[in-house]
Amino acid sequence: MSESKAQRGNFFEDFAVGQVITHATPRTMTQGEVALYMGLYGPRFAVQSSEEFARAIGYPRAPIDDLLVFHTIFGKTVPDLSLNAIANLGYAECRFLRPVYPGDTLSASSEVIGVRENSNRTSGVVYVRTSGCNQNGDRVLDYVRWVMVRKRNPRASAPAPVVPKLAERVAPSELAMAVPPLNVAGYDHAVAGAPYRWGDYAAGEKIDHLDAMTLEEAEHQIATRLYQNTARVHFNQHAQARLVYGGVVISLARALSYNGLANAFHIAAINAGRHVAPCHAGDTVYAWSEILERAELPGRTDIGALRARLIATKNRGCADHPLRTSAGAYADGVLLDLDLWLAVPR
Amino acid sequence: MSESKAQRGNFFEDFAVGQVITHATPRTMTQGEVALYMGLYGPRFAVQSSEEFARAIGYPRAPIDDLLVFHTIFGKTVPDLSLNAIANLGYAECRFLRPVYPGDTLSASSEVIGVRENSNRTSGVVYVRTSGCNQNGDRVLDYVRWVMVRKRNPRASAPAPVVPKLAERVAPSELAMAVPPLNVAGYDHAVAGAPYRWGDYAAGEKIDHLDAMTLEEAEHQIATRLYQNTARVHFNQHAQARLVYGGVVISLARALSYNGLANAFHIAAINAGRHVAPCHAGDTVYAWSEILERAELPGRTDIGALRARLIATKNRGCADHPLRTSAGAYADGVLLDLDLWLAVPR
Amino acid sequence: MSESKAQRGNFFEDFAVGQVITHATPRTMTQGEVALYMGLYGPRFAVQSSEEFARAIGYPRAPIDDLLVFHTIFGKTVPDLSLNAIANLGYAECRFLRPVYPGDTLSASSEVIGVRENSNRTSGVVYVRTSGCNQNGDRVLDYVRWVMVRKRNPRASAPAPVVPKLAERVAPSELAMAVPPLNVAGYDHAVAGAPYRWGDYAAGEKIDHLDAMTLEEAEHQIATRLYQNTARVHFNQHAQARLVYGGVVISLARALSYNGLANAFHIAAINAGRHVAPCHAGDTVYAWSEILERAELPGRTDIGALRARLIATKNRGCADHPLRTSAGAYADGVLLDLDLWLAVPR
Repeated sequence: MSESKAQRGNFFEDFAVGQVITHATPRTMTQGEVALYMGLYGPRFAVQSSEEFARAIGYPRAPIDDLLVFHTIFGKTVPDLSLNAIANLGYAECRFLRPVYPGDTLSASSEVIGVRENSNRTSGVVYVRTSGCNQNGDRVLDYVRWVMVRKRNPRASAPAPVVPKLAERVAPSELAMAVPPLNVAGYDHAVAGAPYRWGDYAAGEKIDHLDAMTLEEAEHQIATRLYQNTARVHFNQHAQARLVYGGVVISLARALSYNGLANAFHIAAINAGRHVAPCHAGDTVYAWSEILERAELPGRTDIGALRARLIATKNRGCADHPLRTSAGAYADGVLLDLDLWLAVPR
Repeated sequence: MSESKAQRGNFFEDFAVGQVITHATPRTMTQGEVALYMGLYGPRFAVQSSEEFARAIGYPRAPIDDLLVFHTIFGKTVPDLSLNAIANLGYAECRFLRPVYPGDTLSASSEVIGVRENSNRTSGVVYVRTSGCNQNGDRVLDYVRWVMVRKRNPRASAPAPVVPKLAERVAPSELAMAVPPLNVAGYDHAVAGAPYRWGDYAAGEKIDHLDAMTLEEAEHQIATRLYQNTARVHFNQHAQARLVYGGVVISLARALSYNGLANAFHIAAINAGRHVAPCHAGDTVYAWSEILERAELPGRTDIGALRARLIATKNRGCADHPLRTSAGAYADGVLLDLDLWLAVPR
Repeated sequence: MSESKAQRGNFFEDFAVGQVITHATPRTMTQGEVALYMGLYGPRFAVQSSEEFARAIGYPRAPIDDLLVFHTIFGKTVPDLSLNAIANLGYAECRFLRPVYPGDTLSASSEVIGVRENSNRTSGVVYVRTSGCNQNGDRVLDYVRWVMVRKRNPRASAPAPVVPKLAERVAPSELAMAVPPLNVAGYDHAVAGAPYRWGDYAAGEKIDHLDAMTLEEAEHQIATRLYQNTARVHFNQHAQARLVYGGVVISLARALSYNGLANAFHIAAINAGRHVAPCHAGDTVYAWSEILERAELPGRTDIGALRARLIATKNRGCADHPLRTSAGAYADGVLLDLDLWLAVPR
């Protein structure tokens, strides 16, 4: 039938553990993407902003923002994984493995590593490990994600549940493979915007990033299309109020975090991530961070890792570091709870 | 007089058959334009998205989206042709003659090929054949367009009417000159996003493209300025509700058509085109296609042509393929009726 | 204290005459920035739009729009100079000293050249001379700016007032250093869009630029982030109605001025500039110019300079050249009063 040529996406019963999915539409990343990403979020980390700064510390050239890489790979997976998703439940074990430069072409594939039907039998949770590769076939990142996906047919029988065991955090030995050996003497703190190095941060430290940004429909739509992410919930106001792609909130929070973490120039890993509440156009996003842990990186004296919790809120400032209510639930206004490893010069 | 240095555009009586107009402001197309076009529409055709994919099938590099070329050339003509237009009536005989790559510089000229005063004597229809050229003077596209233009002076006498005879469709022998000989074995359907080749489509087949996008003022304004199209009706809310440039609807419908026509990677021709109803910010655009004809291309075994009718609607889905009422008028919500030749691997 | 890692910006008492501030985050300008600037404002000056046009007249390649350079340098100064500003009072002596091309990396520094406490003792005016440099350390522009900045502590004692003496206008001998010797014979007026050369303009001439653009929140936010300008007043609707960055109005007015000044391809200097009234999303910007003076440039027969007053208004047309009321105040709706030197082929 002709109608079947337009894809309606996979349903829960279409996924089986061990299945490998090649996602469509490889994408060459250019300085055009980089500039538009800048216009959408306004990050100010010097390594990604300046060819000269990047070269002075040992990069062959300015790398593309880690999150632009992440969203581009993520976007490719949407038609196969989450067109019929009810919710994007979480991320784990996200590692950035190689730098990506303008001119590199990214493609994505995913392996199904878990499935578990929900007790209501109308949906289930699918776990995938997604890899992004460059044009040479080298992996540039991988991550685990799990989504709740509708069943096509509630009466369809479900496979035996498989729930992968996921690391609580990426091990320090696996971090910062995307960062070449740095000439830290060439890292100009005045130009980077702050004097604080790895050793200046301590576990338990909380930083209100102070700034905030109000999101517009045009902004999140342009961002989400830039990633070729086609999930309908972000684009069709005629069908329902448009939901902002969670990655937009992540990128905004990351850009805001410059004010307080200016030298945390690289996201080395996303240990865990949760979109706590929906975000819509008109919401104003604030952010704060808590330093959770400080780790040396085996064999590296140039950089160290900070494990940080990055919290984004909507329509409320972060001077009081909002996170949980006394009852343990997320506090009103919390949008995002992200557990990151950040690379910082020592 | 000083005031005359600001141009108010041409009126009906300024046009004469045979007149050739050089349009201002040549434009170098870069990866910046390509990325912004991606952010505005989100197309997913692999040939334009990936340098690697394009090279694997025989392009020297990824070509620029056909419609970005079309809109750029079209935009240049606006100050001379349609600043005083009442309506953009139609397109015909639009052929894409050479690929355009980042770094190419586009310029435009038009020849007036017809004029016909309206019976009310306050306006008339002007027919032009517009050509776009690259920096070597090679034509990259040409098309016929006709617009209804105000008269400066209703009492001005009108020239004898000349109405050009236009082809109902571009002949298959004139198609796909912008496509180099392809190595179809290098065309990876998994990566392109769908298994369907030229021979898998049949005349009469209808495809609901399922997805939809709600348009914002900022989006259509950014798009229209990107094309250096200065028509006032798109930009000045103080004077009147802003009308979305019809080309924005064309690009959105084309991007949506990926879902069902993923391998129709090149628009080989626009046989006819009509903006049936106005589109405003806030409208949600849907699309469907009907395959009208399948044609072999003389001398080519790599690709074939599909003639398709691409219909865009606003604020209504396309599951029932809306087009005409039983009385023959366009159905409510139909925005665009476009007759295209598409190139598809065999 | 951890909180201090997030910067709250400098206050009046943090500035002292002679102090030199290195601003953070150098920025490599690419064709991505150029394309996005085009999408945000739609300028049509041929020199910046076409590599071929630029080369035909003697540039090695198309230079980046002067105002994109200005806003990028300006943006870098915001975290140090104007995060606690009450008002951006004026600009003077802004000279464009070298062309900037895609691939150049810009950085900024400022010297404090004046301070004067206000009589209310809660704020003061700070005068700085800001320089922008490229990756070779060559200055590409410099300008003086003065802002009214809050005091941290109203009871803090103030330094002796120093108010710099500023030139009423940049001297013709200092103009157009950013313009290489031009081959004016290669300047194609048909393609540039208008026949008028330097000698065709006369002091006293007034030009209504006719066109207008309505500004959207997404547009000014994307623009302002593109410049990495983080001033909170532009981005946080939760705290207060967002104010459009004045540079957005300048760029819009400049783009509109093409219609009447198509060959004024380069801003050679900003002699003075004042944001007369606030601009918000939803406002429609119109513009007109008055030619104030025509100057030869010492040693140059290729180009001459026009001194022009560029006025932008909101929500009113400029056919009557609005500027002052009979009482001498700015007329209702006037947004911007800019005194420019423009380079024009002779």
